[in-house]
Parts: sequence; structure tokens; C-alpha cells
Amino acid sequence: MNQLVAAIDLADDLQAIDRAVLEKFESRSALLNVASRYLLSSGGKRVRAALTLLCARLGPHYEERRVYNVATAIEMIHAASLVHDDLVDEADVRRGRVTVHSKWGGNVALMVGDYLFALAAGQMAEASDPRIIKSFARGVERICEAELSPVTDVEPLQMALDQYYTKIGGKTAALFECAAEGGLLATGGSEQQIEALRQFGYEIGLAFQIVDDVLDFTADEQTLGKPAGHDLKEGTITLPVLYAIDQGASEIVREAALTYQPSPELVAAAVVEVRRVCATKRAFADAEKLVEKAIKRLDIFPDSPARDGLIDLAELVLRRKM
Amino acid sequence: MNQLVAAIDLADDLQAIDRAVLEKFESRSALLNVASRYLLSSGGKRVRAALTLLCARLGPHYEERRVYNVATAIEMIHAASLVHDDLVDEADVRRGRVTVHSKWGGNVALMVGDYLFALAAGQMAEASDPRIIKSFARGVERICEAELSPVTDVEPLQMALDQYYTKIGGKTAALFECAAEGGLLATGGSEQQIEALRQFGYEIGLAFQIVDDVLDFTADEQTLGKPAGHDLKEGTITLPVLYAIDQGASEIVREAALTYQPSPELVAAAVVEVRRVCATKRAFADAEKLVEKAIKRLDIFPDSPARDGLIDLAELVLRRKM
Repeated sequence: MNQLVAAIDLADDLQAIDRAVLEKFESRSALLNVASRYLLSSGGKRVRAALTLLCARLGPHYEERRVYNVATAIEMIHAASLVHDDLVDEADVRRGRVTVHSKWGGNVALMVGDYLFALAAGQMAEASDPRIIKSFARGVERICEAELSPVTDVEPLQMALDQYYTKIGGKTAALFECAAEGGLLATGGSEQQIEALRQFGYEIGLAFQIVDDVLDFTADEQTLGKPAGHDLKEGTITLPVLYAIDQGASEIVREAALTYQPSPELVAAAVVEVRRVCATKRAFADAEKLVEKAIKRLDIFPDSPARDGLIDLAELVLRRKM
Repeated sequence: MNQLVAAIDLADDLQAIDRAVLEKFESRSALLNVASRYLLSSGGKRVRAALTLLCARLGPHYEERRVYNVATAIEMIHAASLVHDDLVDEADVRRGRVTVHSKWGGNVALMVGDYLFALAAGQMAEASDPRIIKSFARGVERICEAELSPVTDVEPLQMALDQYYTKIGGKTAALFECAAEGGLLATGGSEQQIEALRQFGYEIGLAFQIVDDVLDFTADEQTLGKPAGHDLKEGTITLPVLYAIDQGASEIVREAALTYQPSPELVAAAVVEVRRVCATKRAFADAEKLVEKAIKRLDIFPDSPARDGLIDLAELVLRRKM
């Protein structure tokens, strides 16, 4: 992301968002403040805020306060969904840092998430357009739906792919869609433009998650902050696994994917096998196609630094290493 | 509540709210739909919706759809906060019914709560006045703060009372305040009227919770759906306990209040002692004073059936048996 920040002058805006996010916590509960700040300062990439900021610049009525409200709200919703997701998954560590529920217990994690959802809703109420809250509300609904819709099958491929795309569509792409749409809604784009950015956000959100799922097989532990094959270990079936099985990988992959709590040895062997049959490359190619499609959506906008920024952002999704 | 419904012709409205609440669940996740419907059909009293409906009738621009949106949203937020509260408390049963997290697991309970918060936010976005969402957001924030702010001390009395009122102010009264305020905001009352109803809602909310806490000592198990002294068992220190200790009850009460997981025998003995020193009566008198104060807030409104309905509602808070 640092490349993007340098290239299109988002640095000041993103720093302001960072400050704004952390300043919002003035709860009467000291514990809520501390845990919320901890969560929001955990070095996220603020890619959703960047998306909102760039999309907002495409609209005719840019007003900093309104745009910042939407961008901070999106980051808060993202953080809320992560803290609840970690609670569901009983994850002890995220990005190399102890999770809120490991540090303060499940109750605090639960309340921090609820609190952030509420703060975000309050922020969005300050926005000009009620469609922003509706979009946010629908986004959170889709995140919840996805959380309860796991990929359960590895074949037939088409069915498994449907499950996978439904899952990541809600888990990740829905909020990218909100981030993009919300930015332009805050500055008054046309219906057609809003729809284009909605699709753009959704598609790069899918690509973002696919790259995430690929990195879980290809990145080294140092970069990832967790061992490779973490998704398999947690029982999460992702695109590289589906493609590996489709491409005739050994039984080990299927076994690792469908076994409850597979052994570290089984996971490690499956990771090697998924790489061997080049399933990660095929998954990555899907992400590339999505990014290409997303960039095409921007054709309806006249050339501008913000539009170039969105193209850069879309391409960076493919180049990220963590 | 049935008396109120009969007295002031709320029956049709409340039935419509009941239907509206259940019709909202059209998620792609069958589990979310089923669990949400289960939660919302658990025979709540819909007292918050009644409050919204009556307050709405005091405004000049009554429009059914808008008012229903706010009333259903309030009931959803209430249900969401209950399902997360049960998760925090690990409660297996509420109102004689198995809780969502006992039936489907903690993850479903977590997601059902998040989903309902989001649905409610979306509903409120349809409302005319952005202050409604702000009020809702602040209400949820206060619920979260209260959830993490237990009463930890039983004396000195004034300090313990401060803790208690802060706790129930967030846990219960905040949403009553939103329900009342939201009703009038939906139909366009004046600033002064809105402030009066906010206070009215807050005060009857406090009274409602005090009566709840008193009933936990005085009602029989059949009516309560749980054994008397349930709060003590769960480590929750309430007003009757504080007054009992202040009035020189035996050490048993303090011991039951401050022991982690007190034995059923200790709890039962403490319940008898709290009753013996008439601490429940003193607590109930506080609720009566709050209701009286709340009713006074309505003086600024001209006489009307809706205003009478609010007075009835406030008095019913004291007369309820469960």
C-alpha cells in the first residue's frame, strides 16, 4: 500500500483517517476504549478507507468531513467484523498480534465489535445520503450470512466454486463494495457511476480475498504472521484447494480439506501438493481476471488522478505480499 | 401489557409490528432466518415498540410506515442485545425458553445479533430524520458500555448506587430512551418535546429494570421462568441487595453478593434475608418515584389518548408481574 500512498497523494488523508479512527473512542468504559484502540491500531492497511477516499474524489461535491466520516466508519465496521470473526474462529493471533478476545476475553471482544458497529452507524448518520447507511447495513448483513455459510464441498467443482464465491463475496467483497459506493455517495455521483463503483469494489474485493487465500499457500510464515496452510488447519476450504483437487492432486489434499482438525503434518503435505499442481497459479489467474474486469468498470469516468489511483489500487491488490 | 393494549387500542399496531418484525428475515442464510425468527417470536412484551408507537402519536406528522420502521428497529435492537447478553452470561434459558446460543451455538448467536443490528440500522435509514439513527447508535454504545461496567461494590451505598444506576441506565434505560425519542422524531415533535420524551423513556426504563430486579427476589419461579435469586447466582449485584446490606441484613447477603459462584443454599438464604429486611420494598419505592417523575415530564403535552396511554404504560411498569 505504501506505493499507492506515495503515487497518488493519499498519505495525508490516510493519516487523518488513522487519527480520526482512534479519536472516536471516548466511551465511559475504559476497557472499551483501550480494547477498541488496540484493535484499530493493529497496523491494518486501510485499503478500504483508501478505496472510499479515491471513489469520493470522483464525485462533484467533495467535502472532507463527510468523506472522512464514511472512510472511518468503513474501517470501524471492518475492525468490528474482524474482532467477531476472530471470536467465531477462536483465533489467538492476527497479523502477528494477540487478538482482543485472547487478551481480554470473549465478552470484551463481543462488546467491542458491537460498540464499533454502533459508532460506525452513528458516523454514517452524519453523512448526507441515507443510502450510505443502507449500503452499510446490507454489507454487515452479508458479512453475517457469509460467516454462517462455509464451503462444505470440494466437488463437483462448479458447486464448490459457487459456495466459495458466495462465501468470499460476503466475507470480504461486500465491504469493499460499500467502501467504494459510500465514497461516491458522499460526494454525489450519478446512479450509473455509483453502480459502476459498486461492481468495481465488489470485484477487487473478491480478488483481494483470492490473493489472501493464495498467499496462505505461497507466502512464508514470517510475512504471513502464521504458518502456511492456516486455512486448511482451521477447516476453511479455499480456491487453491478446489483447483488442486480438480487438477488431480493426490488424496492428501482432499483429506486435509475434509478432516476435522487435520494434523500439522497432513496440512504441510497438502500445502506442498497444492503448490505442485499449480493450483495457486490458477486461482491467482482468477484474481487477475477480476481486477481486469474491475478496471474496465472505470471506463465511464473521465481520466483523472483519482481514477488512475483506483487503477493502481486494483493492481496493487494483485501485487501485495501480505 | 394486555391491559394497556386493550385500554388504548394498541393491539392492531402491535400485531402489525409483530408481523413486520418476522417478515424482515429474508436472508440468504437459512440458519440466520430460523434463528432470528425463533428469537423474535419468543413472546416478548413489545413494551419498547408500544412506547415508540405512543410517542409517535404525539407528533404532528404521523405516517404509519415510518413509525413502524422505528418500532420494528427498536425491537430488533432489543433482541440483538438480548442474544449477545445471553452469550456473555452463558445463559441457557430466557423466559423459559432455550437461548439461541444454547440451541445453535455461540457463533450463530453472535451472528444473529450482528445481523439484527444491521437490519435495524437499515430500517432506521428509511426514517425521515437522521437523528433517529444517531440516537440508536448512541443507545447501542451505552448498552455495550453497561455490559462491561458491572456493579463491583456493595458499599459505601452512594458509590454502589452510582454503579448500579450507571449499569441499568445503559443496560435498559438507554433503549427505552431511544424508543420514546425515536417515536416522536419520526413524526416531528419540537426539541423541547423530544427532550421531555427522552427523559420520560429513560426514567421508565430505569423503573422497568428496578422492578425486574425486585421481581428476581419476590416472584415465584413459575412466573419468573427461573429460580428466585438468579441475579445473585450469576454474580449480578442489584438494588435490593445494596439496600439490604445498608439496612443491616445479615452477613449472608454480602457473602452471596461478593462470592464467585455462590452455592444455591447461600443464594436461597440471601433471598430470604433481602426480603426480611424489606429491601425490595425500598427498591420498589425508587421505581415508583421514577415513574412519578416520568409522568410529570408529560405535562408539556396537551391532553390526548396517546398521552393517557403513556401514563398507563408508565404505571404498568410498576404493576407487571414478570
